Amino acid sequence: MIYASKNILQTIQKLKMNKFRKLENQFIVEGDKLVQEALSCVPGKIKKILCTEKSELYSTDLHGFAVFEISESDLMKISSQQSPQHSIAVLDGLDCSLIENPSEKIILVCDGIQDPGNFGTIIRTADWFGISTIVASKNTVDFYNQKVIQSSMGSIFRVQVKYVDLPEWLENSTRLKIGTLLEGKDIFAVQINEPCVLVIGSEGQGISSSVKDKLDIAVTIPRMGGAESLNASVATGIALSELSKVKK
Amino acid sequence: MIYASKNILQTIQKLKMNKFRKLENQFIVEGDKLVQEALSCVPGKIKKILCTEKSELYSTDLHGFAVFEISESDLMKISSQQSPQHSIAVLDGLDCSLIENPSEKIILVCDGIQDPGNFGTIIRTADWFGISTIVASKNTVDFYNQKVIQSSMGSIFRVQVKYVDLPEWLENSTRLKIGTLLEGKDIFAVQINEPCVLVIGSEGQGISSSVKDKLDIAVTIPRMGGAESLNASVATGIALSELSKVKK
Repeated sequence: MIYASKNILQTIQKLKMNKFRKLENQFIVEGDKLVQEALSCVPGKIKKILCTEKSELYSTDLHGFAVFEISESDLMKISSQQSPQHSIAVLDGLDCSLIENPSEKIILVCDGIQDPGNFGTIIRTADWFGISTIVASKNTVDFYNQKVIQSSMGSIFRVQVKYVDLPEWLENSTRLKIGTLLEGKDIFAVQINEPCVLVIGSEGQGISSSVKDKLDIAVTIPRMGGAESLNASVATGIALSELSKVKK
Repeated sequence: MIYASKNILQTIQKLKMNKFRKLENQFIVEGDKLVQEALSCVPGKIKKILCTEKSELYSTDLHGFAVFEISESDLMKISSQQSPQHSIAVLDGLDCSLIENPSEKIILVCDGIQDPGNFGTIIRTADWFGISTIVASKNTVDFYNQKVIQSSMGSIFRVQVKYVDLPEWLENSTRLKIGTLLEGKDIFAVQINEPCVLVIGSEGQGISSSVKDKLDIAVTIPRMGGAESLNASVATGIALSELSKVKK
């Protein structure tokens, strides 16, 4: 196996920056598990795979892919993980057509989520509930941020995320628009059996006022204790679990 | 206001280490919001408060507390936050009596949660649902870890966490023991109206086998999509929201 050149290592370093990712329309996934998910979900997007001797991919037949060897110490240098899991891959940007599937009950909308760990976890949670589309406001954290990718645990390959002018997009959507707010109807009591949009607000600010104006219903997860708010990804999980049910 | 001595700054540095926290039975909270929560929830536990000129506490009357001034740059040096929020406090360890309140429907049990952000978020979520007691296995991440404290958003002052020999504790509990597993009864379909214990497993391993042996019911959050698992704090949120409801 050819050893990864200095040039390749530098490119990977650069892809940690949003600016460079945009310029190249490329991004990085790290660790055997995620690289394997990329191989099975989006093989056509893989530009390069770098793996160490310890990687499960090292002895796998990756015919047709550009595979390079890297030492554990070089991987440590270019990785953004504390304990890199033996491989890293460079991928072309994923497709995002935003063709709405009317048979899908829920489209998830993120209004300004800032924390990459939260956003990755939201993508993973959406995937668990079978949601294939997330629409995000333009000030939402970058989908290709390393922490988003890693905390999504591979769900980025199954959930498409589209960044839009959110008030405008909501204006044009014919779906029922539901927003999670600290004050609204008890989410456990509402019955939603039609195609809808579920809006989750940002960690600090909640849903922005221009988006709030477009909502049909505000729902809230009833609070029984002292916490001021729920973490954004936890709130998403609870709201999706409720709205996914067909209530009678 | 007296400027914080080198000695005080060093003590705070040391309290970032688990070993030193245990030795001194002290821990740190950071940021105006958390320090203010400490002042209102556990004033008797506060040993020292350090604040910068920018802190909301700087001009607050904190008569009776040991308050020191610190520069933004010194705070930056001792803080574990990327953008320190102008104050930091040293507290004595919180009380944890583990007196079971039979009128509380749910006791939350964490079996080996490793990620401090997840554990803090779980504490915050428990607090939202009015749960006052979390029982944790001894291999669960330290409650006083900086990231646990910060991501709990102040809920550490309202939720007590007790570390126990978990199989033994479960053996002695008379409550119904429910565990979240990837395979179990549909949590949306079960009816639990009696006092119970809800066990959440660790991120990588789930519930350990010695704890699984003690369960009365295994429940699962129905998966509709491709994700292999849910984040531990998201799963906790969904399970607590379901079990908190009184179903008819």
